[in-house]
Amino acid sequence: MTYLIDGLQYANWSEKIFRQMRSGGVDAVHVTITYHETFRETVLLIEQWNRWFEQYPDLIFQGRTADDVRHARETGRTAIFFGSQNPSCIEDDIGLVEVMHTLGLRFMQLTYNNQSLLASGCYEDEDTGLTRMGRQVVAEMNRVGLVIDMSHSGERSTFEAIEHSSRPITISHANPASWHSALRNKSDDLLRTLGQSGGFLGLSAYPHHLKDGSKCTLQSWCDMAALAIDLVGSQNVGIGTDLCQDQPDSIVEWMRVGRWTKAIDYGEGSAANAGFPAMPNWFHDNRDLAGIREGLLAAGLDVETIDGVMGDNWHAFFDKSFGAQASPKEIQNAAE
Amino acid sequence: MTYLIDGLQYANWSEKIFRQMRSGGVDAVHVTITYHETFRETVLLIEQWNRWFEQYPDLIFQGRTADDVRHARETGRTAIFFGSQNPSCIEDDIGLVEVMHTLGLRFMQLTYNNQSLLASGCYEDEDTGLTRMGRQVVAEMNRVGLVIDMSHSGERSTFEAIEHSSRPITISHANPASWHSALRNKSDDLLRTLGQSGGFLGLSAYPHHLKDGSKCTLQSWCDMAALAIDLVGSQNVGIGTDLCQDQPDSIVEWMRVGRWTKAIDYGEGSAANAGFPAMPNWFHDNRDLAGIREGLLAAGLDVETIDGVMGDNWHAFFDKSFGAQASPKEIQNAAE
Repeated sequence: MTYLIDGLQYANWSEKIFRQMRSGGVDAVHVTITYHETFRETVLLIEQWNRWFEQYPDLIFQGRTADDVRHARETGRTAIFFGSQNPSCIEDDIGLVEVMHTLGLRFMQLTYNNQSLLASGCYEDEDTGLTRMGRQVVAEMNRVGLVIDMSHSGERSTFEAIEHSSRPITISHANPASWHSALRNKSDDLLRTLGQSGGFLGLSAYPHHLKDGSKCTLQSWCDMAALAIDLVGSQNVGIGTDLCQDQPDSIVEWMRVGRWTKAIDYGEGSAANAGFPAMPNWFHDNRDLAGIREGLLAAGLDVETIDGVMGDNWHAFFDKSFGAQASPKEIQNAAE
Repeated sequence: MTYLIDGLQYANWSEKIFRQMRSGGVDAVHVTITYHETFRETVLLIEQWNRWFEQYPDLIFQGRTADDVRHARETGRTAIFFGSQNPSCIEDDIGLVEVMHTLGLRFMQLTYNNQSLLASGCYEDEDTGLTRMGRQVVAEMNRVGLVIDMSHSGERSTFEAIEHSSRPITISHANPASWHSALRNKSDDLLRTLGQSGGFLGLSAYPHHLKDGSKCTLQSWCDMAALAIDLVGSQNVGIGTDLCQDQPDSIVEWMRVGRWTKAIDYGEGSAANAGFPAMPNWFHDNRDLAGIREGLLAAGLDVETIDGVMGDNWHAFFDKSFGAQASPKEIQNAAE
């Protein structure tokens, strides 16, 4: 079975987009549901998703396990997996890790650009690694099956998350900095360590992460994919487009500024380029994922590797990541 | 398979009580987790339960489906099903009905003695039936599989809940008022209507619901059970002891007063008898449920009826009540 999975999108969701997922044959998407929202505010966002699941049951349903990807394929729908790009939703309460997992959260970033209660973001001057609470939350996320996502974290924090976590982590949407230098892209050294630990890289199509930005060619992006596979491993790379389709610019401001400052922070943008950047001409919506497959073929990758990158690798990662961790007693019994 | 299920307890939970559940061979308990707490406060109470599930995995686990009762029996544990005795946990937000169900809530009372946003409690002077929001929430509870519990509601509200609900409702812990007159006990007329609608009555062992209070004999209680079976139906009656084991009297004050008054309200008690009443001498903890079975045998009930009352009836009710309601399309497909 070959699956088509996008490991990160944050669109202005609508029936149109859900139908485009079906037109594109997308079996599963990891969607960002929350950034700086408190627990209660995040629950309101889940309630909105519940409404969409109720309104469009023929198009989408909530994914909770890797098996739901198979179920999506068999029923001609797209499984939606929830993620958070910041730990605001667990507030200062480690008990909310399990609660959020019960509500379907499957990915949580420890930081979004800034210092959080858990770790340092990639825009801080000082990256001090995992905090005391960060180490506890990593262990709790491991226990319940909530994947640690370090896409927006600093390098030291990411190394420490890999080291401290007993289960593979992910960088769901970023590219190698050796292809395009950016605070959000990752060093070759970090990507090698990620791959050696069984961790996962989702390749971004967001212009600020691309060589030549919005003018990045599909060929250049696919050559980058080959580089990423060399660094992280052919079974540890997938797609994480960071598609922010149909979003107004007020949203990118919320993502960058939240409630942490009264000033404007431009994040990856600038005063002259404050809004969402134009997407490259080969990727506008879910129907364009097929074109990426063509590009990878043209770049000379073999079909098995391409199948992995387009979805099978994420599926295997979902399969080992979303369930509860075996207890020490269960591990001991299995060994006897 | 014969199960042992208690349809309502609110103890001061501890390892001691969980071990008594095992000694008593109790397969499942519907436990009250929240009264007047907001959504966020209720989540804190769920977090406490998650800690107990993590600490005592050999004794208890969270039940979500009727099949979990079978799983409990097979693994020698007790399945814990969550319930709320007031709708405070959904606040004024119908979207929280599905969220609470996802978190495992399986029973919710529309009222606790007082008027709520949904219906009238049994202590109000005027029972005005289901409110506008009440009718919407009943339909939403039907949709997701959250059982409507009218134990503390007024008579008109309960009749209207039976009429408006498309799925059977429950009165999880009360007795016939014709046996012992009390605001919390239910009229013969109401109990007959409950049974005819497929609804369910859990028989209470809480002294304020008993003839002769704390001095009620087991024989009297078992004769009452036979009366209830005549009124509601042999397959529609179970146990709902309302056991409040080891609770300090501050808890019964919270149950009665919440945050709705600055004065003291004694509820079923009185100034002279403000605290928890002494339990009857034949029921102190989960190990005493076996004695109720003996009492029912002595009262002349047949074994099949007793098996039903002691747990099999609740199990069948769980089986038809906790899952999502078939959509109109699914019902139509099944009919074709």
